[in-house]
Amino acid sequence: MLNFIAGGVCAAQGFRAGGIHVGVKTHNPEKKDMALIVSDADCACAAVYTKNAVKAAHIHVDKRHLADGRARAAVINSGNANACAPNGEENTERVCAAAAKAVGCPPEDIVAASTGIIGQTLNVAVMEAGMPDLFASLDPGAAGSDAAAHAIMTTDTVKKELAVETVIGGKTVHIGAIAKGSGMIHPNMGTMLCFITTDCAVSPEMIRAALLDTVRVSFNRISVDGDTSTNDTCCILANGMAGNAPITEKGPDCDAFTAALKVLCTELAKQMASDGEGASHLITCTVTGAKDEQSAETVAKSVIGSALTKAAIFGADANWGRVLCAMGYSGVDFDPDKVDVAFESAAGSVQVCARGRGLDFDEELAKKVLTEHDVTIAIAMGEGDGSCTCWGCDLTYEYVKINGDYRT
Amino acid sequence: MLNFIAGGVCAAQGFRAGGIHVGVKTHNPEKKDMALIVSDADCACAAVYTKNAVKAAHIHVDKRHLADGRARAAVINSGNANACAPNGEENTERVCAAAAKAVGCPPEDIVAASTGIIGQTLNVAVMEAGMPDLFASLDPGAAGSDAAAHAIMTTDTVKKELAVETVIGGKTVHIGAIAKGSGMIHPNMGTMLCFITTDCAVSPEMIRAALLDTVRVSFNRISVDGDTSTNDTCCILANGMAGNAPITEKGPDCDAFTAALKVLCTELAKQMASDGEGASHLITCTVTGAKDEQSAETVAKSVIGSALTKAAIFGADANWGRVLCAMGYSGVDFDPDKVDVAFESAAGSVQVCARGRGLDFDEELAKKVLTEHDVTIAIAMGEGDGSCTCWGCDLTYEYVKINGDYRT
Repeated sequence: MLNFIAGGVCAAQGFRAGGIHVGVKTHNPEKKDMALIVSDADCACAAVYTKNAVKAAHIHVDKRHLADGRARAAVINSGNANACAPNGEENTERVCAAAAKAVGCPPEDIVAASTGIIGQTLNVAVMEAGMPDLFASLDPGAAGSDAAAHAIMTTDTVKKELAVETVIGGKTVHIGAIAKGSGMIHPNMGTMLCFITTDCAVSPEMIRAALLDTVRVSFNRISVDGDTSTNDTCCILANGMAGNAPITEKGPDCDAFTAALKVLCTELAKQMASDGEGASHLITCTVTGAKDEQSAETVAKSVIGSALTKAAIFGADANWGRVLCAMGYSGVDFDPDKVDVAFESAAGSVQVCARGRGLDFDEELAKKVLTEHDVTIAIAMGEGDGSCTCWGCDLTYEYVKINGDYRT
Repeated sequence: MLNFIAGGVCAAQGFRAGGIHVGVKTHNPEKKDMALIVSDADCACAAVYTKNAVKAAHIHVDKRHLADGRARAAVINSGNANACAPNGEENTERVCAAAAKAVGCPPEDIVAASTGIIGQTLNVAVMEAGMPDLFASLDPGAAGSDAAAHAIMTTDTVKKELAVETVIGGKTVHIGAIAKGSGMIHPNMGTMLCFITTDCAVSPEMIRAALLDTVRVSFNRISVDGDTSTNDTCCILANGMAGNAPITEKGPDCDAFTAALKVLCTELAKQMASDGEGASHLITCTVTGAKDEQSAETVAKSVIGSALTKAAIFGADANWGRVLCAMGYSGVDFDPDKVDVAFESAAGSVQVCARGRGLDFDEELAKKVLTEHDVTIAIAMGEGDGSCTCWGCDLTYEYVKINGDYRT
């Protein structure tokens, strides 16, 4: 049993959340810019971060705070990445200290994250000053998650939150999340912020394993623009309040939990790709018949990352040559003469290439297929059993516009 | 002594060139689509090709024809890439046979190249039918090179030809070239077409060595969109008519020849980047103080390849955080806290980052600097003596427009 439910990060028992405007975002006082998620009980906690060599300050702080695999709350700001910024770690520690004071826990039990402009000093004073109001705004219901989800958005056009419930060890367990991500999205961990809560009882070791396993097949399989951010963070808090027998080793309970987590994170990853900056299409690339899964993933990522393929989908142009070209420079060794390519969507399916050669296809139908919002590039490589699905978006005027003047 | 001179591929003694419309490009009969370059004497010839696993048919044919390192003429069409197309190699062989008949040499002494749309059958009949007219149009002067340069253009907005003269072994030697390249440009060989002629006497082995050495530091250091083409070809023909003592081994003559070739090709590479599809800026990225040259090159390529950095330059936005970010995901290991960044152009220079932290800089001056057509991102890494310069262009609305509907 696995159901999608409402409530986001507040779907799991014992979690409260909130989000308000404190003043990090100076241009628009209507925009929330600080979120807080608090568990009533101590949590097992794990996080994965960007592999970018330039890392935001919060990542260094969090790694220290999570040395014991435990946390009580997460505090997140948008509007400033606190990366390459003066006094970065010191400022993040001050934010954690303020949150800890409000929550009533040691600062080491707070995890923090930032997202926004790189290189500017974090206005920690407004975050400290706003903390009591933020804490007072915490809500254990859907409204709390909604406020938090809005408070972590930057160029996102839609808020991203999701929750699922499943049964583990005879108990109903909930997993919920809020996420943000729209630009600087390229899989090398998750390239975005995602905070996940669960009432499942699970040890720090096993929650870390489940998170790594999940990120690999969800957030690491999307791309918006090929730019791996300095701030990527995916963090999960598990407070055990569902009352299941704690998951402390591999086995059916661990598998069930990980499976549910994968469903949640894959959906959120697709939402991010779909809301890619300026995107007008969600592009799904399915690769089958590859030598192995890794080859399939490398090929699929190369296709969804190709600027020329992305521009062609924007123009609803069935330019499959660019798909073959992107496969060819992926670095995977394969025989082009075995490749089939089709474009698919709710409007139909058009095979455009068989065994590496172009087919005479119905251009009108192809146009119709590619005009749909969700389009799939289906590649069959004829080499083996490896398969993989990755998600991306098209390249549009709007992407250029958004990123031609992001700072002002 | 090294001078830029007129004449392109006809600057070298004993070369004739031409370009006409034969009908490969069906949309506009005004557009030339077939070029021919013929040497009066047998040439040492070398070529390098795309590393894309999906290769155009001409690359397979040329490799056979160049097994002996010798050629007499080059025939090039635009409008059709003859890649992933039915009967690709057979059609290229037919074009070579037609050229050989006109020139009066064996088909194995012809090198061919194609550029244009992938996946469509090459209209070889119009190329065969047009060959006599093309041959009749050959001209040993600047007009011949000009016609050939126009005939290989696709989305290029300016023709690209260049020539230099230098003295080798007491003789004046000429090297000239025509090139095309505007989209699908990402360094993994040269990602474009470039045909080079010289009257320098040089053995097949040494001309190959000089070409490889040159491509590494010129065409392999540019990027327009990160897409490595299926058709990239850089080919040089040397007929020895300058009368210098043939270059058959490393030494001062070989060094002088290679140095001149590098000047020629670096200039052409910059012209390609500057004429990148939709580009409004030529971006030069200079990296100094890297651990070694390879690290510097990897960092510089990552920066010029970053969609976010390219969009920022389009918007004349001094968003140096994206530069640091792109350095960070380049794969090179470095200390961000040692990095300095400045933006430079004819309008001035603005340092924006010192030792990994943002500086308070003059935003108005930065805007002025970045509004110039040619802008430089100057990075000092503080790690060692490695340095490298790479070239790219900005990401614009026009790029998206051009590539949203390339086929129609």
